[in-house]
Amino acid sequence: MTDQVKLYGVEVSPFVARAKIALNLKGINYEFIQEDLDNKSPDLLKYNPFLKKVPVLVHNGNPISESLVIIEYIDEIWKGVPIMTKDAYEKAQAQFWAKVIDDKCHPAVLKAILSHGEEQAVAEADEQLQFLENELKVKGSKFFGGDNIGLVDICVGYTIFWVGAAEEALGIELVAKDKFPKITEWSDNCINCQVVKDGLPTRESLVAFYNRLFGKAE
Amino acid sequence: MTDQVKLYGVEVSPFVARAKIALNLKGINYEFIQEDLDNKSPDLLKYNPFLKKVPVLVHNGNPISESLVIIEYIDEIWKGVPIMTKDAYEKAQAQFWAKVIDDKCHPAVLKAILSHGEEQAVAEADEQLQFLENELKVKGSKFFGGDNIGLVDICVGYTIFWVGAAEEALGIELVAKDKFPKITEWSDNCINCQVVKDGLPTRESLVAFYNRLFGKAE
Repeated sequence: MTDQVKLYGVEVSPFVARAKIALNLKGINYEFIQEDLDNKSPDLLKYNPFLKKVPVLVHNGNPISESLVIIEYIDEIWKGVPIMTKDAYEKAQAQFWAKVIDDKCHPAVLKAILSHGEEQAVAEADEQLQFLENELKVKGSKFFGGDNIGLVDICVGYTIFWVGAAEEALGIELVAKDKFPKITEWSDNCINCQVVKDGLPTRESLVAFYNRLFGKAE
Repeated sequence: MTDQVKLYGVEVSPFVARAKIALNLKGINYEFIQEDLDNKSPDLLKYNPFLKKVPVLVHNGNPISESLVIIEYIDEIWKGVPIMTKDAYEKAQAQFWAKVIDDKCHPAVLKAILSHGEEQAVAEADEQLQFLENELKVKGSKFFGGDNIGLVDICVGYTIFWVGAAEEALGIELVAKDKFPKITEWSDNCINCQVVKDGLPTRESLVAFYNRLFGKAE
């Protein structure tokens, strides 16, 4: 039987991008179903009735929600290029960093974006990013876990792409790239990966999204 | 070589309880190191410098943080009674429910506790718990994933124990048990498991904790 794979999402969501990149890495053909979050489809409400959120992966009729869970599922179902390392300790480290970048760095950077670059919010984002910068300095590898793309790269290695679009829409710099050379280098390595590139929205659609978010005319 | 296993935590944390229960289930001997969160130990700051949070599991010198990551690590390192099912879809479902109960039900119940049972906060907690109640009705099994204790039980199956202690300290009912018979039955099944029981704080210490939290004299 051929696998039937559908992904419900919106183009501009970094959480949806995670699922796309994981599917791209495994070379899986899938149907992307664009959701309208102001008017969610009956399918989305059926597949994720509790959270009503994207992304939802539907594999042969079985729905899976929450981007980190989706990535791990994809890695278990489709072999080939592995996302998770087999080493239990390295895997735990990757899961830890994927979670803390999500829980600490992203909210701080989002706050800086939504405050339109307010000084205190930017200082707090800088503080969180400094931890990540230090960790990348220690690692010194092309990707987060070594020479090959892995969990942390797929989850968060390219989110600077969103920050750049927000900066363009606002006309200000939020993350000072010269302060974070390792984060910048790592992000570039991730974004230049074809499987990542193919999972990202266009820069134009992202800038247009932020313009709408900030109430600016398009 | 004998494994050296240390767990840094505080008795009253449900996140620390998760790690204890997982270790108990695997029959692992470990040293519990009680932290003072107002005066964190140099070890804790060394092992979890980014988050500075408990629990931290230290296995043969290697630190692992974040309770869900710790549980998965324990399950991979020590075989015997499995925590995660081998079936990728069932595993994804368990990970999903562990995460959403954490992200949706717990904050709502915590808000109801911290508001001392304010009507709106209790109504919101009830709404979140109703989803869980419905899911348990569909499942109809002793534990969340079937007849054996698993990930969701270890993560959240016994948190009503904390709610009960908060209710005692406040002298009010926060979660109306007659509204949630399935949650009550499931919680009882979990709490009556020896490995869970051995991982929980005493009721007295928990009530004393809430009394301190609510500024009541002990």
